[in-house]
Formats: sequence, C-alpha cells, structure tokens
Amino acid sequence: MSASAALDRLAAEVHHDVQARIGEGRVADYIPALARIDPRQFGLALHTCSGETAAVGACRQGFSIQSVSKVFTLTLALGRVGDALWQRVGREPSGSPFNSIVQLEREQGIPRNPLINAGALVVTDAILAGRAPQVAVAEILAYLRELSDDMHIKVDREVAQSEADTGFRNASLANFIKSFGNLVHPVEHVLETYFNQCALRMNCVQLARAGLFLAHGGVDPLTSHRVVDAQAARRINAIMMTCGHYDASGDFAFRVGLPGKSGVGGAILAIAPRQAAVAVWSPGLNAAGNSLVGSLALESLSRRTGWSVF
Amino acid sequence: MSASAALDRLAAEVHHDVQARIGEGRVADYIPALARIDPRQFGLALHTCSGETAAVGACRQGFSIQSVSKVFTLTLALGRVGDALWQRVGREPSGSPFNSIVQLEREQGIPRNPLINAGALVVTDAILAGRAPQVAVAEILAYLRELSDDMHIKVDREVAQSEADTGFRNASLANFIKSFGNLVHPVEHVLETYFNQCALRMNCVQLARAGLFLAHGGVDPLTSHRVVDAQAARRINAIMMTCGHYDASGDFAFRVGLPGKSGVGGAILAIAPRQAAVAVWSPGLNAAGNSLVGSLALESLSRRTGWSVF
Amino acid sequence: MSASAALDRLAAEVHHDVQARIGEGRVADYIPALARIDPRQFGLALHTCSGETAAVGACRQGFSIQSVSKVFTLTLALGRVGDALWQRVGREPSGSPFNSIVQLEREQGIPRNPLINAGALVVTDAILAGRAPQVAVAEILAYLRELSDDMHIKVDREVAQSEADTGFRNASLANFIKSFGNLVHPVEHVLETYFNQCALRMNCVQLARAGLFLAHGGVDPLTSHRVVDAQAARRINAIMMTCGHYDASGDFAFRVGLPGKSGVGGAILAIAPRQAAVAVWSPGLNAAGNSLVGSLALESLSRRTGWSVF
Amino acid sequence: MSASAALDRLAAEVHHDVQARIGEGRVADYIPALARIDPRQFGLALHTCSGETAAVGACRQGFSIQSVSKVFTLTLALGRVGDALWQRVGREPSGSPFNSIVQLEREQGIPRNPLINAGALVVTDAILAGRAPQVAVAEILAYLRELSDDMHIKVDREVAQSEADTGFRNASLANFIKSFGNLVHPVEHVLETYFNQCALRMNCVQLARAGLFLAHGGVDPLTSHRVVDAQAARRINAIMMTCGHYDASGDFAFRVGLPGKSGVGGAILAIAPRQAAVAVWSPGLNAAGNSLVGSLALESLSRRTGWSVF
Repeated sequence: MSASAALDRLAAEVHHDVQARIGEGRVADYIPALARIDPRQFGLALHTCSGETAAVGACRQGFSIQSVSKVFTLTLALGRVGDALWQRVGREPSGSPFNSIVQLEREQGIPRNPLINAGALVVTDAILAGRAPQVAVAEILAYLRELSDDMHIKVDREVAQSEADTGFRNASLANFIKSFGNLVHPVEHVLETYFNQCALRMNCVQLARAGLFLAHGGVDPLTSHRVVDAQAARRINAIMMTCGHYDASGDFAFRVGLPGKSGVGGAILAIAPRQAAVAVWSPGLNAAGNSLVGSLALESLSRRTGWSVF
Repeated sequence: MSASAALDRLAAEVHHDVQARIGEGRVADYIPALARIDPRQFGLALHTCSGETAAVGACRQGFSIQSVSKVFTLTLALGRVGDALWQRVGREPSGSPFNSIVQLEREQGIPRNPLINAGALVVTDAILAGRAPQVAVAEILAYLRELSDDMHIKVDREVAQSEADTGFRNASLANFIKSFGNLVHPVEHVLETYFNQCALRMNCVQLARAGLFLAHGGVDPLTSHRVVDAQAARRINAIMMTCGHYDASGDFAFRVGLPGKSGVGGAILAIAPRQAAVAVWSPGLNAAGNSLVGSLALESLSRRTGWSVF
Repeated sequence: MSASAALDRLAAEVHHDVQARIGEGRVADYIPALARIDPRQFGLALHTCSGETAAVGACRQGFSIQSVSKVFTLTLALGRVGDALWQRVGREPSGSPFNSIVQLEREQGIPRNPLINAGALVVTDAILAGRAPQVAVAEILAYLRELSDDMHIKVDREVAQSEADTGFRNASLANFIKSFGNLVHPVEHVLETYFNQCALRMNCVQLARAGLFLAHGGVDPLTSHRVVDAQAARRINAIMMTCGHYDASGDFAFRVGLPGKSGVGGAILAIAPRQAAVAVWSPGLNAAGNSLVGSLALESLSRRTGWSVF
Repeated sequence: MSASAALDRLAAEVHHDVQARIGEGRVADYIPALARIDPRQFGLALHTCSGETAAVGACRQGFSIQSVSKVFTLTLALGRVGDALWQRVGREPSGSPFNSIVQLEREQGIPRNPLINAGALVVTDAILAGRAPQVAVAEILAYLRELSDDMHIKVDREVAQSEADTGFRNASLANFIKSFGNLVHPVEHVLETYFNQCALRMNCVQLARAGLFLAHGGVDPLTSHRVVDAQAARRINAIMMTCGHYDASGDFAFRVGLPGKSGVGGAILAIAPRQAAVAVWSPGLNAAGNSLVGSLALESLSRRTGWSVF
C-alpha cells in the first residue's frame, strides 16, 4: 500500500472510530453565529512532512478557528519581537479561567502563557506595533493565507462583530492588563484586532497545511520556506503541549500525547513532530470547552499511529 | 567512535557546559540534613535503551531523591489500582503552591495531579492498602532496588525523621484532603510512609537506571521485564511533562522538551522516550525550587542530542 | 409597668415573632452529638446592665456553645498577653471560608481575625502559655463559670471527643499556621484545648450572664468586678460586629445592628452596648452557618428595642 | 461652657492631638490632580444633631471626595429602587482588592458591597435608570448640593477627565460585571457617571453637613427633611461600619468605633449615630489607602467624646 493510501485508510479508520459519537457535546452559544451551527459535523485533514495528505468528512467546511489563531499570532509575534516577548507573557499552564484572573493580579499583569485569552491579547498588542487594527488584521490574514497556501481564507465579519458586541470578558481582561501597563496600544485597538483574528474562517485542510511547519522544525516541508527557527518551533510545540487546551491541557497530553491547540469553534490543530500536522473539527464541546469528538479523533489517531511524543 | 564513547563524550560536554555555574542556587534549608549539603556538586548519569551508560561528576554520590520518588509511587499505585486512581487525583498542572491549595478546596479535596505533594499523599494512601506504614515503605524500597538493580538503596532515617519533625505543611495538606474523605488511612500513616519515600537515598546512576523503563514503553530494556504497560508509561511521561516541575513545568518543557521530575534535594530524572533515561543532581535550587544547574545540564543535553520530543 | 415586666413582655413578643419559624434550618451534622438535636427548639435570655433579666422558651436547655467560646478565649488572651496578640492575629473580616485559607497563605500564617477558626487556634495557643491542655481547659472552664456566676457549666466530653475524631479541617488549619511558626505549642495541644473549649455546654441564661461585662464597658454590672478595661471591651464588641458571623457578618450588622457571635450549635451571643447582653439558641442553621431563628429573634429584638448601635 | 464652645474646644483638641503627624502618609499619585496636592494639610468639621457646628484647620479647602461619594449614591439608589438593589450587590466586607475580584467571579458578578468600586459601579448603574450620564451626574450633584445646603459644590472636570484617562482598572471591573449581565447600561455610560461622582469637589464643612441625616435616623435635623427612612439610615451606617475602609474596615471599627467612609483624596466621613456627622481631610494615605491623619483624628475624637457605638 502506498504511503498515501495508508494515510487515507488511517483517516477513514479514525473517522469510523468516532462516527457514533458525532453530535455529542454542546456548541458554543455565546454568539449567534456559533450557536446555530449543527454539532453533527466532523472533519479531519492530515499533512505529513513528506508531502502526503488525507482528509475525511467535512474537511472543506469552513469554521471559525477562534483560539487556534493564537498559535499563529504567537509565531508572528516571536518573529517580530523575538524573546523579548517573554518579558510580557509567561509560559506556564494557567489552570482554570478562575486561576487565570487570580494569577494575572498576583503576577502584575503578566499573563501565564500566550495561549489563554489574556496572553493572546498581549501577543496581539505586540503584533500591532503602532499600526492601525485593520493593518494588523490584514497582516495576520496574509500570513495565514501564505502558510496554508490558500488565498481564499477570510475573516468572518459577522463573527468578528458578534465577538465585539459581547466581548465584555475580553474587554475586562484587556483593561486589567492595561492597568498594569502591559498593553502598549489603546484597549480598543487590541480588542478589534483580537476579535478579527478569532473570526478567521478556515477549513481542516487549510488549517493542517498552515500548521505543517511546526511539525518540520519551523520549515514548510513543501516549499522549504523557513517560517521560524527550529528552536522557536520546538518551543511553540512545547507551549501547545502544556497550555493548548485550557484547564484540560494535562488531560490532552495524557490521552493524545501531541502538542495541540483547540478553539471554541470546535477545531483542534495537533502537531506530530517530524511526522505531520493534523486538523480536526467538530463543533460539540466537552466540559472543558474543547471539541469533544475532535479530542476523541486525535486520541484514536495517536493510538493508531504511535505518534505520541511520549 | 563507538556508541559508548559517544555517550561518554556527550556526558563530558554537558558537564563542561555547566561547569562555570556549579554552586549557583540555594540548597533547600528546611531541614538540617539538606541545609548542610555543599551546593558545589554536580553529577549526571545516562542509561540508553540500547544498554549504553555514561556518567560524570558526583554520579555515585548519594542524595535524597525527595519528590522524584513521586514518579515511582505513581507507577506502583497505577499497578495496584489502575485507572481507579484517577477518581482520586487529577492530571492537570497546578500552577503555584498557592493555587494548589485553592484548587484543592474548589475541587473538593481532589489534588490536581500526582506529582505535587497533595497528589502524592493520595497516591501513597493508595499504596498503603490497609497495611502498616513500614510495610508500604518496605515495598517502595524493594521496588526501587529492583528497578535500579541495586540492593544498596536505603531510606535515610535522619532525613525521614527531620521531615516528620517539620512537616507541618504536609500534615496540613493531608488533614485537608482527609477532611474531604480522600484519604482512606489515618493521616499519620500516610505521612509516615510519605516522609520515608521522600527520604530514599540514591545516586544518579541508580536513579537513571530506575527510570529507564519509562523511556522504553514500560519495559526494562536490559531485563525485558515489563514494569507497566506501554500506555501507562506514555501517560506517566505525559504527566511528568506537564506537571513535573511545579510552577516551572511549562518552562522546563519550553527549554528542555523532555518529561522530567525534580526533587528539592537537587535531583532531576528526565526521560527521552525511545532513547534514554537521564538523572542529574546538583543541590542548588532556582527560584522555582528545581535544581538550577541540573536544569541547565538537561537543556544542554537536549540541545546536543536533539532528544527534545518537540 | 416595671422594667422587669417590660423585659418579660419584650422576650415574649420576640418569642412570638419567631414562633412560626422555629424548626427551620438544618442542624449541624458533622458530629453525631450535634446531628441528633431536634431543631424545633428555641431559647432566649436577656441580662440588662441595670440588673433585670428575662428569659423565654428553652432558656435553660444546655447546648454546645461552639464558636461563641471564641469571644471568651479572646477576652482571656487579651488579659494575658495584651496588644501583643495583634502581632499574631488580625482584626479584619475574612469573607468566606475559602478566603480564609487563601488569606492565611497570602498573609504568612496570620489569621484574619480571632473569631474565625484559624484565629481562634492562635488565641488558644496564647492561652496555653506553656501549660498542658487540661490546665488551659480548666482555666477556660473556671473563667466561664465565674463570668456566668454558675458553677454547673461543664465541658461535654462526648462533643469534645467527636470534634477531635473528625476535626481534620481544624487539624489542617493548625498545621498550616504552625508551618508559618505562628503556633508556639504542639499542634495536638492546641487542638485538644480548642476542641474542649468548643464543647463547653451552657444555656441561654448562663451565656447572656457571661457576656454582660461586654455591654457594660468591661465591668460586670452586678458584681462591679472589672473583667477587661473599657477600651478592650469596646474593641471586642467591634470585632464581634465586623467578624462575628463568618461570611454573613455584614448581613447581621445590616439586619440586627449589634455586635454578636454565633456558634454552629445554634447559639448567638449579642451585645447591646450600655443596655444588655442577649443569648439566643435555636439549632437550625441558615446557609451561612448561623442560627436561622436566632438571627430572626435578634432582628426582632433590635427592632422592638431600638438597641441597634446605628 | 456652652455646647458650641465645648464643640469648638473638642475640634481644637483633636487638631492638637494630630498636629505632629500632619504630612505623614503618601498622597494618591495615580492622577496628576491628586499627586500634586500638598500632604501637609488637615481639616475637620462637625455638625451635631442639635445644630452645633465646629471646624478647624483647612475646613473650607475643597478636595476630591472620591469614594466618599459612594455613601450618597447608595442613598440615592436605595431611594430609587429600594431593597431590589440587594439583588445586585451584597453587603459583606470584601477583604483585599485581590479578594474583591476573586469574589466577583465566584459570586457571578455580584459585588460584595456597595462601598467597593465594583459595587459602586452597580449602584451607579441603578441610578442611571435609562438616562444619559450627564443627567445622572446632574442629579447626583443636585443631591449633594441639597444635602449640604450649599449650591457651590461642583464636579472637578480635570479630575473626572484624568480618572477617565487612566481608569483601566475600573473599566476592567465594569466590563467584568457587564459580562455577568449585572450592568444594564453601556459600560461607558456607567464609567462616565462614576468618574464624575468621584470627582465631586467638596470641603469638610459641606461634607459633614451632607452626612448629617445619617446621624439622625435619615432626617436632616436642621430642615426636618426626611432623606431616607430610619431603617435605611441604620443600614447605610451598618454597611459603612463593616465595609467603609476597604481592607482596613475592621481596624477602623476597632480603633474608632464609628461608621465611616474614606476616599483616596484623603477625606473620611464618620457618623456618630444620634450625635453628629464628622468630616476630616488630610491627603496623606496609610498603607490601606485611607487618610492616615484623618484616621488618627477620628480615633482621638472617638476617645474624647465616647461616641464609639461599642
């Protein structure tokens, strides 16, 4: 069997493993654009470092990537400001959202890590670099288009607007961080940029492709373009492992054993170092706010492939 | 160059990398037996899955393994009660010691993970299984002797007694957990067993040898003896990665990229899956309570070998 | 109508006001001796500074005074060590029990105030003064007998033993405080003394009589014996006002407007400065752990008399 | 000596008692308009229920009343919505600012009491009642002018603007509360109104006069105008006692024994029920953020008069 056929079979087997569970979980309901999505959907796409791809289910159905965007803005910010970023944001797991706020006060406005909302706001502030929000959003969009090699990626304006209309918790966080002097730009600029990056609309094929450089030492294996240096790529993976699933990061490491980042829209991007990037999407969330079926699919994939880093 | 010679050279290079830093950090001073240890010591030992070994510095100098023991009692408890253990202890990073107590109350006496003190007390309770503390301690000791293939390992009675005399914080934790019904045995039995396991005296060679099964899918590669099943070994590694260095676990993953567990006596056991087990020891601690020079040595080792799982 | 007759009428009216509510609330159930008490009981006794008394209901039924004892041990400790006590315990409200532990860590083992368990343990430690627990308990008992002018007051040994058997939360607190060096005596001595003081058995008549000096500037108005100086009496009242009802102290001040201290056995001692001391007892507790009907009775009393300090 | 002469002497004696301390403490420095104030100032004014007045020092020097305004907006809101207000804000002490945020999350956006910033924002929201901020501000201003019988009271526009420019912590709180649905109006409207009420400029004579109704059962004793019912007045006093000095409320009750409310501008309004209202001002703050010399003056006053409610 060719490598490509084996990959197709793998994708199909994983799909089969979770078939009966599709539709479980609750979709995010804090904005209408997410609340009305049918939870009975599942997509998966893989890109290997050697160039094979496989995809099943609703793998070309677009979704709001939400917090998965934090991986890419982190990469962008590290490219822009380098290790100076770590003066402004930590890299420790945060525990519960509750802890997140408590820590923010104890640690004088330094968010625990760049993959929680507080930290991502600081990262976004670093990306703004004195520019208008729409310029920064355009840069982020261009970056994702390039990484995924697909010019069709867009920001979902309805989602971005809904986030802005209801984003009081994020506005609270941003003002809190600002009160410690850890945001350079006006709070509204940071929030506008942040709400737009969360509203990026992608599908599994695009998302797996965009994350492939993280599985290959920071270099896109298909174009040989270096996105970040090898150390930065390893470090981003490390942060995804310890912090990528909110207060269930430990559980994801335990069950799946791969660096990953989930979003409340139901997507998870997982990286199998030296092997592949994988994107899954299924909108029903578990109690920790991560895709229920997506997590199961990655657990199945990890078991079937032995890609667990442990 | 033979594999063994290459490994010797690696150990020597790592030693050289950290030479200038040896003596930095503060030794733990809460008990006399630890406080009087000279911080200007460093040892390192490696055991590879293919049977090579290398060791440098004070690699045969005994030390109190302290919290590194938590890895082995976790393994023992999983063998005894299996996944039922996860009803009583979580597997999420805990953040600061501060968080640890707050979480313990919010989560009704269920410690965040088995590698913090609260969780290790529950693990010890599971090992006791209705027996007297000295019986459980004898079992733990026999287990470590078998894993390290060295009958000379002992419990340091002075350290155990000092821990008991000053262990008010652990007594507080144990009583707190007991108040939620999450300890079966009398608090004093759990504490006595726990203080003895922390006082196990080992050296780097013994410690690396004892952890080797975790690098090899749960099987000791030298004896082919299965210690735990492959999934359990992966999961223990996952917990070490996300929770093994207290509130600096994220930083260790970021810098070193290997599962590891540190102890306040200055030891760190690190696992390079499919490659090797490594033990380092240097008593000076950094601000997070982990061996300062030991962490640097593992960062050097990871960089030189490319063993980072990321 | 004579003063005494007016006081009898007042007591009767208050009794009538709460009659329909008697039996509401949940009795404390953490030890059998409290759990089996019939909640359908109510007693009230008043002693005025001018020597009148009135009492209704089960006013001579003995009960476990529990945390009401903290007022008397505080008085005793202030007499023994004076203002030096405030180096070891604060006088700020603590909020929820949750806060209490968090604060204890943030504030390095200094409890928020002497009327929460943590603070009362420190107060008990101050009373011990190098003596054996039974000596300190004997002193506390003698003190209460003298204040209430009644030699029949006893410690309920069954309650004290039950407290000791199940007091893991208090043992946790005591060890926690000890770990910060804020207990001088062995933890077991402090706990033994504390469990005995909580198990003091008194009735409403005795309790109101014992508290009368606090309504009269520190002097027992019937014997002219000075118990504490006037400033200390005012200060104890102030602490009762801000801290006497756990996380419902603000609400008690709002509704009743008198300094008071409740116990989980269903008793409340309230002080109307320059007027009277009042003891109520009814075992059913509200959600905050204070006597539900007792609180209502004091609200009625305050409204009928205008004794609110506000 | 006439009552008036006695009051003059009292004021002079209190002034004398604190003379040597004037200038101690640190002025609030978060906005320029406060930071540049000379700490070496002290003013005091008393209004008794029987109509006498006395004043010393800089008693007619205007200052920013800041959080003292919370007492008056609470009174206004209780008049507007009555006990329904207590569905939206509690009346328990909050402990530290740290606790304040933690509690806000645990208690689902219900602030602990109306005298901390979070609670005052909810109170301000209740006052807005669908109107524009400038209308609500005008009402609050008119209310204070009436209560103090002085048409010259103004909002200090520079202070209000500075508060708005730097008020990230308050913006964070307001958005946080809004995220729980406990603000009806737009966050910006609530903040604009709030920043203006804090910027009210008054002097000691005006402030003592404005608070006099709280010492007299809710009725202005000079005009016989009923401001609030007697129960509401008692309850406002109770909240001032338990919550009026942030995390030093217990200490103020302990030392002074009067209901009081402090502001970061250096003012304290204290109420001696049935006796008098007292306003002190001295801009140097103690560690808890309350006027250092103002607190001392009230302690002296309470000791000299016996007005402590305890």
